[in-house]
Amino acid sequence: MAIVLGENQYGKAENRVVRIDRGLDDDEAHRITDLNVSVALSGDMADTHLTGANDKVLATDTQKNTVFAFARDGIGEIEAYGLRLARHFVDSQESIHHSTVSIESYPWTRLGHHSFSRSGEGTRTAVVSYDGVKAQVTGGIKDLTVLNSTGSEFWGFPRDRYTTLGETTDRILATAVSATWRFAVEDTDWAKVYEAARDSLLEAFADTHSLSLQQTLYAMGTRVLETVPELDEVSLSLPNKHHFLVDLEPFGLDNPGEVFFAADRPYGLIEGTVRREA
Amino acid sequence: MAIVLGENQYGKAENRVVRIDRGLDDDEAHRITDLNVSVALSGDMADTHLTGANDKVLATDTQKNTVFAFARDGIGEIEAYGLRLARHFVDSQESIHHSTVSIESYPWTRLGHHSFSRSGEGTRTAVVSYDGVKAQVTGGIKDLTVLNSTGSEFWGFPRDRYTTLGETTDRILATAVSATWRFAVEDTDWAKVYEAARDSLLEAFADTHSLSLQQTLYAMGTRVLETVPELDEVSLSLPNKHHFLVDLEPFGLDNPGEVFFAADRPYGLIEGTVRREA
Amino acid sequence: MAIVLGENQYGKAENRVVRIDRGLDDDEAHRITDLNVSVALSGDMADTHLTGANDKVLATDTQKNTVFAFARDGIGEIEAYGLRLARHFVDSQESIHHSTVSIESYPWTRLGHHSFSRSGEGTRTAVVSYDGVKAQVTGGIKDLTVLNSTGSEFWGFPRDRYTTLGETTDRILATAVSATWRFAVEDTDWAKVYEAARDSLLEAFADTHSLSLQQTLYAMGTRVLETVPELDEVSLSLPNKHHFLVDLEPFGLDNPGEVFFAADRPYGLIEGTVRREA
Amino acid sequence: MAIVLGENQYGKAENRVVRIDRGLDDDEAHRITDLNVSVALSGDMADTHLTGANDKVLATDTQKNTVFAFARDGIGEIEAYGLRLARHFVDSQESIHHSTVSIESYPWTRLGHHSFSRSGEGTRTAVVSYDGVKAQVTGGIKDLTVLNSTGSEFWGFPRDRYTTLGETTDRILATAVSATWRFAVEDTDWAKVYEAARDSLLEAFADTHSLSLQQTLYAMGTRVLETVPELDEVSLSLPNKHHFLVDLEPFGLDNPGEVFFAADRPYGLIEGTVRREA
Repeated sequence: MAIVLGENQYGKAENRVVRIDRGLDDDEAHRITDLNVSVALSGDMADTHLTGANDKVLATDTQKNTVFAFARDGIGEIEAYGLRLARHFVDSQESIHHSTVSIESYPWTRLGHHSFSRSGEGTRTAVVSYDGVKAQVTGGIKDLTVLNSTGSEFWGFPRDRYTTLGETTDRILATAVSATWRFAVEDTDWAKVYEAARDSLLEAFADTHSLSLQQTLYAMGTRVLETVPELDEVSLSLPNKHHFLVDLEPFGLDNPGEVFFAADRPYGLIEGTVRREA
Repeated sequence: MAIVLGENQYGKAENRVVRIDRGLDDDEAHRITDLNVSVALSGDMADTHLTGANDKVLATDTQKNTVFAFARDGIGEIEAYGLRLARHFVDSQESIHHSTVSIESYPWTRLGHHSFSRSGEGTRTAVVSYDGVKAQVTGGIKDLTVLNSTGSEFWGFPRDRYTTLGETTDRILATAVSATWRFAVEDTDWAKVYEAARDSLLEAFADTHSLSLQQTLYAMGTRVLETVPELDEVSLSLPNKHHFLVDLEPFGLDNPGEVFFAADRPYGLIEGTVRREA
Repeated sequence: MAIVLGENQYGKAENRVVRIDRGLDDDEAHRITDLNVSVALSGDMADTHLTGANDKVLATDTQKNTVFAFARDGIGEIEAYGLRLARHFVDSQESIHHSTVSIESYPWTRLGHHSFSRSGEGTRTAVVSYDGVKAQVTGGIKDLTVLNSTGSEFWGFPRDRYTTLGETTDRILATAVSATWRFAVEDTDWAKVYEAARDSLLEAFADTHSLSLQQTLYAMGTRVLETVPELDEVSLSLPNKHHFLVDLEPFGLDNPGEVFFAADRPYGLIEGTVRREA
Repeated sequence: MAIVLGENQYGKAENRVVRIDRGLDDDEAHRITDLNVSVALSGDMADTHLTGANDKVLATDTQKNTVFAFARDGIGEIEAYGLRLARHFVDSQESIHHSTVSIESYPWTRLGHHSFSRSGEGTRTAVVSYDGVKAQVTGGIKDLTVLNSTGSEFWGFPRDRYTTLGETTDRILATAVSATWRFAVEDTDWAKVYEAARDSLLEAFADTHSLSLQQTLYAMGTRVLETVPELDEVSLSLPNKHHFLVDLEPFGLDNPGEVFFAADRPYGLIEGTVRREA
């Protein structure tokens, strides 16, 4: 059997672009956009793999330059900026047939007219892919750590030879939300969708009485789709950040759900997709 | 020359204690305290180093248990919790002559009655040391990332053979604040001091027109001491998180202070202490 | 359109299992196996998502226990251990239809009879998936950082409006290899394959005169397939860890390929698959 | 009480310098030096803190340039390179009275004539400080992870109200060695000392039957001083990387010292200094 080249892509990853919008006069408050932009391209790339001929390889350094140059006239919402970049690479290079632009946007809180503080309410994400005809936009959030101090149960699970876990009707439920949502449209009010999706995730997490983290995941995904008609699919990855009740009895103390040990590893990892049925 | 044992200490590091305060009835909102507690003890420890005799070695596992057990009756402010722990180890063990308890407290924002979201407005810290007679309390904050999009200059520095940096009258100034402040007292309203010190740091960073990061550092430390009489010294460690203006001229574009590259390494590192003169 | 549950899986991630093989008598040298094991299961999981009923949910805590219990009778090669675990979960639980067991194995160098030092020659990996009928085994390596100090060129790439990169016939080529290889068989001498694949990657990296990192990638994948008949596909992810020649001319110095700045971000990222044609 | 400026320093941190020594002709094997260099300077710095006047502030960008320029004529051993840099800053700038140059050197293994693989046998370190008259050189190593699978006991420790730990006469002892050693001289065969110190640490770790990690620490430090007359003090920081024997009894299995859980946090932290008595 011959050896052949399969799927491949290349690009410049983790371009750290910061843009300051200064407004029209000195009295206007500045705005900051703080991004991490990764580009991946694929297409007619057999030559560079097989012979090292690079005439079809848009250098990753050029990709980086493009990312910064495209920020000159304003970035706007990351989904729109990603679309401009994704379309540019495929439309301007005959040998590039597919592009993926992945963006992380770090949130800042205003301290003053031109002063900001990094906030930690999750990193907004977008992934845009384009094949020369159709673009697919995905939005999302990651590193959004949330915790319910009650309202979470876990019982009724099967017991086999290796099961030692006790059942509980009151535990801490904590996770670091990673969510992505697929847009059914190629243009919309991206910022409004992000806010609505994020708020839906937080509200569903907080107000769902949970019998399993899976149930909470499904409630979160469903809430997003119910709230945001522009989306047709939500995928969630939820590490179960275990908080174990500490046994204080050896010290002559009870522990009525008050003192916990926050464990690092291992952790449960619950992943699932919720979508509209076609 | 004989070989001898010099300074030494030991302890249990990074105990991840989470406490939920549930209030008196089910209708009360929960409160969360999320800590990383490290203990270091020293004293009459020659035997365990020289012969392996452990009769004076309070096991680090016991230290861990103590940290969790002491959380049972409430944690309160981290400076106070650190004082209780630091005193306990020295006062209860004849062989322990000095203790240091270091605590990080992670901030959470309330989402609901018993729901929380991790916020990123800096990690509160405390270090308490005790020698059997006197306790020294240090408070602080770290990982507080701030940025001024204008109002920062850097010029007038000496030029030697290796100097290529241009002068600038308008640059981005960004840093991740690590600050510690020494208390002149052994008891006070710890939470109020923390809030006042933190606010002072942020306000001084935002309203100081900066000719150097050193000047900003001094302004920040001074502001804290002016605002908080309970403190007699502030130490700051400020990485200069460089944001380089991108040269867009090769692409036929100007760049009037709008598009920047956020660099990782190397970075400037400015450290200094501001104190009251005795 | 109704909202429905899509793909989902759950499991216990990052179980840190260490096994000491002590041999038959006290004179025998110990062997160490140091693993990070992650389990992901899927199947008939609608109930727990929709109603919170957990009677089909093998608890992730049980999965963890199983991982440790299965280490009792020896771990052996990670591909074989992964197969035993992957088969167990599906074969023992009616509701589990698919399992994936992912393992990282950290390398240790022998210091003595029962003493070891962690080495850094890459982390061995395996992913085993099983659907009740067929198992698919993937081996691999990651965090294997390599560098060629010459023998790498990059020129002949297209120049568009955003291209500023100069051509070069001599640059540093450095990358951190992540590779996975798909086994065409369900049983073999796993250790021998790993050694052969790893050696092939290193040899091809070292002896390929490179006109692009893509060319090196293809050479590396091809070398593995040529050397190891048990494999039918190799996928590589190669970050281009840029080393930029420092311009020393402002200081009156030349720099004939000697002094470089090792950059963190952004970096090129070259990914590709090489396979046998069916 | 007036507010005054206390201790302060500033500099450029984490300059990632890579140097390739190519030899005299093309047939010679290359050598690689891969460093992370941090500079910290102090002196007559009141003006920049109090008024923002920078005429005494050697820009951190200039420091970076100097680090790279000084690599042009060869780096040699990191202690010597650090000395050249430390002396330069103080001797060439009237306002700089003290310098500290901290260097990490990453180890590479040769794969071929001009090919290398990053190895993981610990990072070599050096810290050089200079005050215009005297230089103090410190060498060291960090991230050297070692494990003994037997030959470690821990018993005889005091039991108080909070003690639950059982005594053991056979446990895994694992740590990530961070060591620094102070030179009694300003010049020596730096490489030879490093090798001797590193080997002494490894040998003492491996051949010490340990009754406590403190005892092992003291043995390691003593061994270095006994072996290397150029050194007068060794400081060690040894995290006790706990490996807990897994209780397999619930599954009907014994566990005769074979299956362990490697914990992340908390961990013991044992720190101590061994020195020659004056």
